[in-house]
Amino acid sequence: MSSTYVPGLEGIIGAQTAISHVDGANGRLVYQGYVIADLAEEMSFEEVAFLLWKGHLPNRDELDGLTKELATNRELTPAARMALDALPKDADPMDVLRSVVSVQGVEHRLAKPTAALAIHATASFPTILATFYRRQHGLEPVQPRPELGHAANYLWMMNGKESSPEIVRALDTYLVLLADHGMNASTFTARVIASTESDLISCLVGAIGALKGPAHGGAPSAVIEQLEEIGTAENAEPWMRDARKRGVRFMGFGHRVYRVYDPRAKILKAMCERMNPKFYALASRVEQTALTILHEEHPERPQSTNVEFYSAGVLQAIGLPKEYFTPTFASARVAGWSAHVLEQAAHNRIIRPQSEYIGPEPRKPVPLADRG
Amino acid sequence: MSSTYVPGLEGIIGAQTAISHVDGANGRLVYQGYVIADLAEEMSFEEVAFLLWKGHLPNRDELDGLTKELATNRELTPAARMALDALPKDADPMDVLRSVVSVQGVEHRLAKPTAALAIHATASFPTILATFYRRQHGLEPVQPRPELGHAANYLWMMNGKESSPEIVRALDTYLVLLADHGMNASTFTARVIASTESDLISCLVGAIGALKGPAHGGAPSAVIEQLEEIGTAENAEPWMRDARKRGVRFMGFGHRVYRVYDPRAKILKAMCERMNPKFYALASRVEQTALTILHEEHPERPQSTNVEFYSAGVLQAIGLPKEYFTPTFASARVAGWSAHVLEQAAHNRIIRPQSEYIGPEPRKPVPLADRG
Repeated sequence: MSSTYVPGLEGIIGAQTAISHVDGANGRLVYQGYVIADLAEEMSFEEVAFLLWKGHLPNRDELDGLTKELATNRELTPAARMALDALPKDADPMDVLRSVVSVQGVEHRLAKPTAALAIHATASFPTILATFYRRQHGLEPVQPRPELGHAANYLWMMNGKESSPEIVRALDTYLVLLADHGMNASTFTARVIASTESDLISCLVGAIGALKGPAHGGAPSAVIEQLEEIGTAENAEPWMRDARKRGVRFMGFGHRVYRVYDPRAKILKAMCERMNPKFYALASRVEQTALTILHEEHPERPQSTNVEFYSAGVLQAIGLPKEYFTPTFASARVAGWSAHVLEQAAHNRIIRPQSEYIGPEPRKPVPLADRG
Repeated sequence: MSSTYVPGLEGIIGAQTAISHVDGANGRLVYQGYVIADLAEEMSFEEVAFLLWKGHLPNRDELDGLTKELATNRELTPAARMALDALPKDADPMDVLRSVVSVQGVEHRLAKPTAALAIHATASFPTILATFYRRQHGLEPVQPRPELGHAANYLWMMNGKESSPEIVRALDTYLVLLADHGMNASTFTARVIASTESDLISCLVGAIGALKGPAHGGAPSAVIEQLEEIGTAENAEPWMRDARKRGVRFMGFGHRVYRVYDPRAKILKAMCERMNPKFYALASRVEQTALTILHEEHPERPQSTNVEFYSAGVLQAIGLPKEYFTPTFASARVAGWSAHVLEQAAHNRIIRPQSEYIGPEPRKPVPLADRG
């Protein structure tokens, strides 16, 4: 109890993990001993999810096994389907995901988290999102296709047609880049819930709720909205200087950890330039202006383009609607969340910090009749 | 990054709060400046929920206002009702609560947590539980009655008949005692989610998932099950000594904070003696034996009967089935969870600890074709 209060637990170590390492000083993100730049453009989401769950890259048989297990667990339970169909069509897709994942995962007796359960949950996310998206637009749901990989099948179920190999590859890269990121708030949420010996779905549902927050994953659609407001590259500087006077925050900037350019943002920026030149022309000017203004205001702070800024352009080029950016982020991060839950469960101690009481000293209650 | 890793964040201060104070050294639990012993046997759950949310005890008008607001928000939305009806009848009621609270709370646009939303969520918990309980037993749901208080209405909706004033008072006391308890794992979960600027329902859904864990709130039915196995007071000592040889954990013992008898357990023990003499005869002998054996094993540790031990006897006397003990705990704690979410939102900083990487050093990936 002699500790001092550190708001946000900044700098406090909340967990030891072999799953990923955000090496902020060197601008590296490491998954189980591989730097993200070596994984992002070559590996499928399936390979990287296997790596996060099992600690090593799969061989051909292991990868085929995982691919099959994912493909055969894409269907929703009848209860999940009914719950999804009952939701209002204008519901936030993050709330849809939180609710339907919860229903899909109801159990009779408490089950310990396992890799198999992680696979089943991961398989269900795209089905939930695509089914709801089509329902919102009055379209029949599209059945999953077992011969398609995870990324390709997500786009198939959203659009009812196959996407080009370039687009599928881009989504795979996005999913790999976003699959894990050390002890962020949603992953920490999942580990706190796991530390009570609760089930995997409870952990994932909590994590979805945390990712929804705009201070965490809930902002990528806001990047698009801000760019739409700015409109043109020429308008970037006047709009943004005026915005600062009005106290408007630049969307897609700022993070706690990286001292140099976020390695994920670097990859996404290159993809964006190739795939979405119109977005890139505006966004790169906005980025430059934002960094200039932020540097003028706080010259002591490092550059701060975060992963959400160019994510928006990549996801737009992939053809996903902006309301589905954060849920797609969740569809990537579920691999990391579940890996962290498995790790927490294997070396568990309940995560229960203290609080510091700052309320009034105890006094006797006044009876109801005498209260003013 | 120079901090050392403290498993479970034990002793680290995760938040400052005026809502409650677990004064372990003195065996006191304080809610907003009132000790629990002064609240438990006089106040209704409504009065104490008001205290937790607003920081002061309500006057008559404020209490009437809250009572009315709770009573008029007990209905489920059509989507929540349909989701509930779709769930398998053998689902864990904690999973039902997690799922239906999530569906009940879907929103179109992110809403900031407010006291009104806290009231609405709190009002819905008993309806969800009672509706599902009756469905499990093939009974028609019972409509809420606005003239009944929160505790009385819960029992009315479960049983389809009114309970005696003594039983209603006992449930009110239970709900007051369990309404908050400093920085436990589920409350901490709610605050971490709130710290991302997410919505209240996301926080509550995460907290329900954390409370489900047997290392947190998921154990009170296990107390009953262990007492049933022991069977008789005479069998307590031989059964328990043998159990320790088999490495069996005594249910209802152990907590991190209290150095003296848990003040809530003390009140529940007295209620149990009065209301459930059969349970008490066995349980008090089991408690005595457990404390003797635990003291022999660890003489340095303090007494450790926890709140769950006599909760089980009180909830049994109230007539609740054991599968509904933990969800009833959640129906109390939702007051505290939501109070903490409001407090976190008012003085926010994202809760994002570091992690310490213990995985392999980065190396180049082997291509798939060459993996063994």
